[in-house]
Amino acid sequence: MWQSTASRRQFLPSWCIVIIRTKSQGSLTLENLNPNIIKLQYAVRGPLVIRAGALIKELAGGSSKPFNKVILANVGDAQAMKQQPITFIRQVVACASYPNLIKSGSMPADVKQRAKDILKSCAGQSVGAYTMSHGIELIRRHVAEYIEQRDGHKANWQDICLTAGASNGIKHVLELFCNKVDCKPTGIMIPIPQYPLYSATLTEFGIGHIRYYLDEDKGWALDINELERSFTDGSKTHAVRAIVVINPGNPTGQVLKRGNIEDIIKFAHKKNLLIFADEVYQANVYDKDSKFFSFKKVMTELGAPYSCCALASFMSISKGYTGECGLRGGWMELCNMDPKVQEHLYKAMSAMLCPPTIGQIVCDCVAKTPCCGEPSYELWEKERCAVLDSLKERSEMIVQAFNGMKGFKCNKVQGAMYAFPRIELSSKAVEAAKAAGKAPDVFYAFKLLEDCGICIVPGSGFGQKPGTYHFRTTILPQKPLLKEMLDTFQKFHQKFSEQYP
Amino acid sequence: MWQSTASRRQFLPSWCIVIIRTKSQGSLTLENLNPNIIKLQYAVRGPLVIRAGALIKELAGGSSKPFNKVILANVGDAQAMKQQPITFIRQVVACASYPNLIKSGSMPADVKQRAKDILKSCAGQSVGAYTMSHGIELIRRHVAEYIEQRDGHKANWQDICLTAGASNGIKHVLELFCNKVDCKPTGIMIPIPQYPLYSATLTEFGIGHIRYYLDEDKGWALDINELERSFTDGSKTHAVRAIVVINPGNPTGQVLKRGNIEDIIKFAHKKNLLIFADEVYQANVYDKDSKFFSFKKVMTELGAPYSCCALASFMSISKGYTGECGLRGGWMELCNMDPKVQEHLYKAMSAMLCPPTIGQIVCDCVAKTPCCGEPSYELWEKERCAVLDSLKERSEMIVQAFNGMKGFKCNKVQGAMYAFPRIELSSKAVEAAKAAGKAPDVFYAFKLLEDCGICIVPGSGFGQKPGTYHFRTTILPQKPLLKEMLDTFQKFHQKFSEQYP
Repeated sequence: MWQSTASRRQFLPSWCIVIIRTKSQGSLTLENLNPNIIKLQYAVRGPLVIRAGALIKELAGGSSKPFNKVILANVGDAQAMKQQPITFIRQVVACASYPNLIKSGSMPADVKQRAKDILKSCAGQSVGAYTMSHGIELIRRHVAEYIEQRDGHKANWQDICLTAGASNGIKHVLELFCNKVDCKPTGIMIPIPQYPLYSATLTEFGIGHIRYYLDEDKGWALDINELERSFTDGSKTHAVRAIVVINPGNPTGQVLKRGNIEDIIKFAHKKNLLIFADEVYQANVYDKDSKFFSFKKVMTELGAPYSCCALASFMSISKGYTGECGLRGGWMELCNMDPKVQEHLYKAMSAMLCPPTIGQIVCDCVAKTPCCGEPSYELWEKERCAVLDSLKERSEMIVQAFNGMKGFKCNKVQGAMYAFPRIELSSKAVEAAKAAGKAPDVFYAFKLLEDCGICIVPGSGFGQKPGTYHFRTTILPQKPLLKEMLDTFQKFHQKFSEQYP
Repeated sequence: MWQSTASRRQFLPSWCIVIIRTKSQGSLTLENLNPNIIKLQYAVRGPLVIRAGALIKELAGGSSKPFNKVILANVGDAQAMKQQPITFIRQVVACASYPNLIKSGSMPADVKQRAKDILKSCAGQSVGAYTMSHGIELIRRHVAEYIEQRDGHKANWQDICLTAGASNGIKHVLELFCNKVDCKPTGIMIPIPQYPLYSATLTEFGIGHIRYYLDEDKGWALDINELERSFTDGSKTHAVRAIVVINPGNPTGQVLKRGNIEDIIKFAHKKNLLIFADEVYQANVYDKDSKFFSFKKVMTELGAPYSCCALASFMSISKGYTGECGLRGGWMELCNMDPKVQEHLYKAMSAMLCPPTIGQIVCDCVAKTPCCGEPSYELWEKERCAVLDSLKERSEMIVQAFNGMKGFKCNKVQGAMYAFPRIELSSKAVEAAKAAGKAPDVFYAFKLLEDCGICIVPGSGFGQKPGTYHFRTTILPQKPLLKEMLDTFQKFHQKFSEQYP
């Protein structure tokens, strides 16, 4: 490291200094880089995805490949897979961005009114002005109303904070935890498999990962005994201070039962844990026997003392039926957070000024949808249903296809946007992977990409029980493409199994 | 702290446990909150601004105040102060967000073409899709071309990274530094006065502030001897690894001379420091004897070995003539960064997915402006000049007014968007402030707000030489409002001086 090197230089002959200078040149090197940044991994955009990007370029440049297109099934990005945006949302965004359109006759009256109302809440009546760091008050109020309608319980708009996507909010709340309490490292409980934002951000902040395993054999159920086991084990080395629950599950697609949520809340209360309720897929429930219950609702209905649990619930405009990933918007609701802590959180967020206004506007459209009778209602309802119905159909298609493939086992996709099948890999395949210097599931995924142009994320990016192999694929390719993808996949797997019997 | 408390409980009688539980209830309390978050201060949105927000609400609610409006001169938010957005930019944003507008006849042809080109570069041809974490390739290429035209030297588009505003990029690069190197705490050199994003973020990451003072008596000049002094002093306790330079200056408004920049680069090279060149006000130079030179240009023209300095330069859509703060966009150019370090930086950024697409689109419009002869050119040029001419006029108005006030001394505003006058406060005023439990400049600013509704930021939020008092005001209120503000200010100061002679 250059600093120590510099101080040691005085004792060295000059030819040594030249060598050291060459080796440690530069103010930022791998040797003195923040080690948490080096350790951080984010599989959803990892080496496979970088390779997929290169393949897309190679194809565009006329290279010959065994496939004619790359299918990006690695990321929950509906519009990248040709899902059409909701017209109402885009009209409101266009009117608010270019208010001349409000004067023109071609936009529906409710769109114009919505844009006007939002602009009235912006400083200088412009989306180009900064907003409060926790978002535009009018929109925070609409979000509180949405939550009240969803849960049947009071929501305080002051506890709603708009964010540049759910990830951004989650990161801000995770940062509130210091990495040590009385010399004991802090730990936060995360499900395995998990969405890698959590592992990445915990690593970034030097916070320990206290893993609890979801039960694949019971449809990725969350077992309270496993929470107890995880907490007890984790507490030997860490001050365990919070628990992350993703419902509906990512990458696992399960939807928690109400009784299960009650047990988790009781557990969190007993152990004095803050609950991170990642509920960004709350509108994405496809299974007829499943229903989404928010942690806030269940906690409130459990009554005291459980209703006093500290809870942060996260929502996004990137998922649901909107899929507005690129516009970066979301919100969080903070329940029972120490008001002084909440003040510090809002203060820390203020250094990044504000979430993007356009993302905030989409939050408004998600929270306060067109009402029956308003000019935009019919089209909005039609578009929304078309998206959700099609997602439901695709969630069934994919599970059926995978379960029809030898060596595959795939739980029902009750909700969210992913399937996470388990694959059996022969010892020959495992050996070949080892020889290639890759984890077996990574080896499989790379081969699938290079042979077929299908980009998925290996299970190791989310965590899996040792000795098991999985991958995550989205259910987002539109039906004809999804069918093509599943057919190709089937052929690939057959060939792979023959190659590594 | 609750964790230690829990472990101590076994030795305590049960009535004690009840008390401890009440006191330390909750998984996140002031006692176990990340101490860096507690320490972090961001004056631009601090208590004064919160009070200003409350006053606006009170006025709207019909409360009687000694003023009829609040003037927010605290934040560089041009559109909040009624600066009109650039039509071309908003038309492109509207067309890209709602592509039906591309088909309609009412938008200029170059606007439609721009929106089409951008959409072609988006996954699924939609602004609702995620982009690469470092931004849309087409826009990164346009930014590289902008930099090449600005500097007359090659820029690699792969080293351009689009961000959700400059602050976001600065934070990502600051995070690359670990807070310790070989047990010695890391320190980064920052100017005093400085933009509080730096102090806030360094505190957040536990990195030391190594202060170098700008010379107020020489128009806030940056003196190399002072850099040497600061580095030498800082090195006693810290591993000093980078230097922040803000040019044009915020809050100080100076524009660095080329020779000065050369000296800073030579200094950084000698000390092996990464240079953070905060150049977000590069389009905001008003003084006829001043000219903006980028660090990249000067470094390149100095040649080896200086042209090999590690440099990160930052730009924003929130400033310049665009003032699109709310849309959150900006870029950074990374020069001579170790490629492996750069890879880790891009990886870490990927966990936050991507900067908002709309902000990226505005980056495109700033980097590639309408050309002479294109349909949007004339209006664009007219609007751009109107903004910059008016800012120049206001920068002169404000300096003249302050220098006409007894006890005020204000340097020329050569660039950026702020004046940072020095004020003399009598010992009576200092005593009164002490009695009120406030720093003298904070006391003054609060009084100005409560008496006149004018919101400024006290100098202590930016740092100032001990015993001196300043405040930052923007030059952004439109001319009639600025005139009114300066008149009110003058009367207030006279009254204040009489009250505390």
